[in-house]
Amino acid sequence: MPYRAPVADYKFIFEHVVGLTQVSATEKFAEATSDVTDAILTEAGRMCEEVLAPLNRNGDLFPAAVENGVVRTSKGFADGFKAIAEGGWVGISADPEYGGMGLPIAMTTALNDMMSASCMALGLNPLLTQGQIEALEHHASDEIKAMYLPKLISGEWTGTMNLTEPQAGSDVGALRSKAEPNGDGSYAVSGQKIFISWGDHDFGGNVCHLVLARLPDGAEGTRGISLFMVPKFIPNEDGSLGEANSLRVVSLEHKMGIHGSPTAVMEFDGATGWLVGAEHKGMAAMFTMMNNARLAVGAQGIGIAEGAYQHALSYALDRKQGPTPVNDKNGAIVDHADVRRMLLEMKADTFAARSIGLACAVAIDMGNATGDAEWKARAAFLTPIAKSFGSDTGIRSAELGVQVHGGMGFIEETGAAQYSRDVRVTAIYEGTNGIQAMDLVARKMMDGGEAAYRLLDEIQADVETARAQCPDLGEKVWNACETLRETTEWLVSQGDLNARFAGAVAYQSGFARVLGGYYHLKAALAETGTGARTKLARFYITRLLPEHASLLETAMQGAEDLYALSLDELGA
Amino acid sequence: MPYRAPVADYKFIFEHVVGLTQVSATEKFAEATSDVTDAILTEAGRMCEEVLAPLNRNGDLFPAAVENGVVRTSKGFADGFKAIAEGGWVGISADPEYGGMGLPIAMTTALNDMMSASCMALGLNPLLTQGQIEALEHHASDEIKAMYLPKLISGEWTGTMNLTEPQAGSDVGALRSKAEPNGDGSYAVSGQKIFISWGDHDFGGNVCHLVLARLPDGAEGTRGISLFMVPKFIPNEDGSLGEANSLRVVSLEHKMGIHGSPTAVMEFDGATGWLVGAEHKGMAAMFTMMNNARLAVGAQGIGIAEGAYQHALSYALDRKQGPTPVNDKNGAIVDHADVRRMLLEMKADTFAARSIGLACAVAIDMGNATGDAEWKARAAFLTPIAKSFGSDTGIRSAELGVQVHGGMGFIEETGAAQYSRDVRVTAIYEGTNGIQAMDLVARKMMDGGEAAYRLLDEIQADVETARAQCPDLGEKVWNACETLRETTEWLVSQGDLNARFAGAVAYQSGFARVLGGYYHLKAALAETGTGARTKLARFYITRLLPEHASLLETAMQGAEDLYALSLDELGA
Repeated sequence: MPYRAPVADYKFIFEHVVGLTQVSATEKFAEATSDVTDAILTEAGRMCEEVLAPLNRNGDLFPAAVENGVVRTSKGFADGFKAIAEGGWVGISADPEYGGMGLPIAMTTALNDMMSASCMALGLNPLLTQGQIEALEHHASDEIKAMYLPKLISGEWTGTMNLTEPQAGSDVGALRSKAEPNGDGSYAVSGQKIFISWGDHDFGGNVCHLVLARLPDGAEGTRGISLFMVPKFIPNEDGSLGEANSLRVVSLEHKMGIHGSPTAVMEFDGATGWLVGAEHKGMAAMFTMMNNARLAVGAQGIGIAEGAYQHALSYALDRKQGPTPVNDKNGAIVDHADVRRMLLEMKADTFAARSIGLACAVAIDMGNATGDAEWKARAAFLTPIAKSFGSDTGIRSAELGVQVHGGMGFIEETGAAQYSRDVRVTAIYEGTNGIQAMDLVARKMMDGGEAAYRLLDEIQADVETARAQCPDLGEKVWNACETLRETTEWLVSQGDLNARFAGAVAYQSGFARVLGGYYHLKAALAETGTGARTKLARFYITRLLPEHASLLETAMQGAEDLYALSLDELGA
Repeated sequence: MPYRAPVADYKFIFEHVVGLTQVSATEKFAEATSDVTDAILTEAGRMCEEVLAPLNRNGDLFPAAVENGVVRTSKGFADGFKAIAEGGWVGISADPEYGGMGLPIAMTTALNDMMSASCMALGLNPLLTQGQIEALEHHASDEIKAMYLPKLISGEWTGTMNLTEPQAGSDVGALRSKAEPNGDGSYAVSGQKIFISWGDHDFGGNVCHLVLARLPDGAEGTRGISLFMVPKFIPNEDGSLGEANSLRVVSLEHKMGIHGSPTAVMEFDGATGWLVGAEHKGMAAMFTMMNNARLAVGAQGIGIAEGAYQHALSYALDRKQGPTPVNDKNGAIVDHADVRRMLLEMKADTFAARSIGLACAVAIDMGNATGDAEWKARAAFLTPIAKSFGSDTGIRSAELGVQVHGGMGFIEETGAAQYSRDVRVTAIYEGTNGIQAMDLVARKMMDGGEAAYRLLDEIQADVETARAQCPDLGEKVWNACETLRETTEWLVSQGDLNARFAGAVAYQSGFARVLGGYYHLKAALAETGTGARTKLARFYITRLLPEHASLLETAMQGAEDLYALSLDELGA
């Protein structure tokens, strides 16, 4: 089942749903004309189809492994990474001054989607490197930029992020890694980090670790944390690789999925590092990387949703199991109502999640291009929604993909199960979806709901127009917006943050459901007559959008009932 | 994290929710007093805790494998099976004439739940044997009964069901296996069967295959299929094992989960078999086994939901990650609202699914004890709901269990991922949940909805009483029942079966949601004051029950939109 990059879908969404034209109308992104973006999507898509997709099962069957202290990656992965690097795909959105293409994040988001659909385990490597590039662009000294950015952008070197420690997961502030000044401007970094994706590999070049650690005078908690660049090999002044740094891979994790991605326990033992950003301000720099990565993880989910959909559709078109309601001979199972229902759920949700992700990317790009605070607030507001709904959609779609395959879905050779196992991590890493939801209802509503209301105002102005053209669907989306507005007002009015947290995940999902309805409606309106987009929009709005009601009702239940059962009663 | 069998929960549900007392009031089950059932549950529970649970990870890490044509099972599984057999647990509900305990299916359902929670891969073996025992009790000749039943019930021998062939999955009628009379009352059975759970093992004794095949004069489709007992070793008259039959394991599947359960491709090459039931009536006999297995698979899902819950709760009580809303020191993550929300969803849905499964079992028992057609119709109606909601709950709960663990959930050593991988098959085998839903809205509504309405009448009579005692919760459940009634009326009124099929899965899930609300309400009413049951009921009814509205709305959308997109448009 060959993967086909959904280039036409990106183009349609760019043009008709999320308005990439406003991005290319800015000076910063003037070169992102549709000719350029089309060519890039087509070429990157071809690489994903032809080079990455054939590696996917290999990565699952033959995981990365530590041999004599060195990480050996899955067969073919080194060549696959070379193709990514040589295409220039790591640096699509990186600064042209250092060799990047300087194109919108929207393009990188589409790339991550395609890389994930074709080989998520390998695609995670450039994804993290992109995030590191952005963090360095914003926070590093000119010396560090000059040394690292060209090589990260070209793919000669790769980047990692080192936050988590055994006792410090979601609570990053509990970290114990230390950094001491060496007196020569460098620092000695010590500590153990876990869950380090692509912590090492055998692709050659350098592995550049961005490590959170505390200086001797750093306060407790997140305010006392600094960020350091700690490379595997200490570069010489000419950029060639010098001596090995005092760090090592202790072990790799055995994971449910993305076996091809080495997830390392890293030990730093007085390793030489250089400060990135100001002392004690490491979290700010790391958040640049994490916000970037959050959208990218959403894109991973969308990619898997797409891959699982294409894979399941192919099976459903091929597999015959007796008469179907619309074919009284031996029809393919695609003609069974419930198989259609599953495929359409996958397809409709993939479109919704992709539109949300690309809308978030456009907001980031507009914020970067214009410096406008409202765009920045829009990007900040949409990021947790894009991350969580993208990953939830990937999980749900992969699950449905298994189900479409029936018994074959449970057999690993089929490949459906791998999508399901691989994508599971997207709801967990870069902040669990629960953490995203807490961010959404607390930090992203510190403006009193202004960003949320502004988005709703815009949507409802659009939907108002749509109601004339497409009354039945327009009406449903309008009503859903009203419910979402009321729920938002309720949340904002809760002085007790925990009352918001109690409904945060439901609110986050409900918001995504409504946004999905809006983007489907826009897609339908962009067609003349009743084409495929309109039919899919009708499916979404009549069968998936209704879920928003119970989600948003649940979002307003408050925290009290959650604590009614004592811990003893929970265990009884 | 040791598993604790939820014996008190079964007892409570038996007594206060599903009315096992009416079963023990029958002559057939007069011995099933609460003293007896308590003792059995306690003893079986202890075996699951002490013997089976420690084997679970072994089965995952070291799958069953074929060595020189012989299946070698995971380390410890042979001893585990011996414990199950020696406890008499295979035959809890089997005919005492052949050595069974003659206790209600409700007891076996609880056993399957506990075996699945502790070691699903191994528990699947006795589960299938139970089904074979029931099929033989109902359909086999006295000779076959005398030869096979005592040994199956004692666990000396085990049973399998052989339906699926590569081209014949959900469409069983497409099977090609053949049986030819040998002239001595036996038959020569030939064909290839796939997905044969526990098709072979190294526990000793015999492996008894019930095989669907077509006689030379058998019609096409399901009406021409006969059922045969085809043992691995042909038994001598005294029951000792004779010569090996002409059958073999071709290979074992590599599966997403239940690695410890050998899933075989079986080849029958003129193997000697004996007819079970009448010629060409094999499907009827097989359906006895499958209906039994459907409820049992629902119980597997419930067991995994319970196991995943206990496992996640233990982690949440232990894991500290900074201040929580109710503990400003370093509180355990159980005190975060969203972690509570996840745990309560797991707990509340497990209770709902367990109650539905045991209500179905009680209906089967009452049908068996009284021969009453209404009880039989109730059992038939509840079976697809119990199977699908049990398995869906297992999948959802295991998924939440992974999420509660955060990053650790994706690491295989933690064990959360195994629950998720193992349980996935329960929505697929014994008829996918989509097939269950088609059965529910077509075959189980051939009575014009009578069975459904009778159940709703009973529920609403109960809820009417409850509304006085517990007005807010009672009101919500009452309204949900009304919506369910209207949806049922709409479905029944659809002459076009495909209009029902289009909403079948949503209806099936919606029905389960409402039933869950009813059983939670009953649990609350059984308490004096506001105890743990009432608090959990409130959680379910305010946060999970609302989903019924969107599900039932979706159930009434008809088939048209599902076929609006052409196959080309699906692929575009």
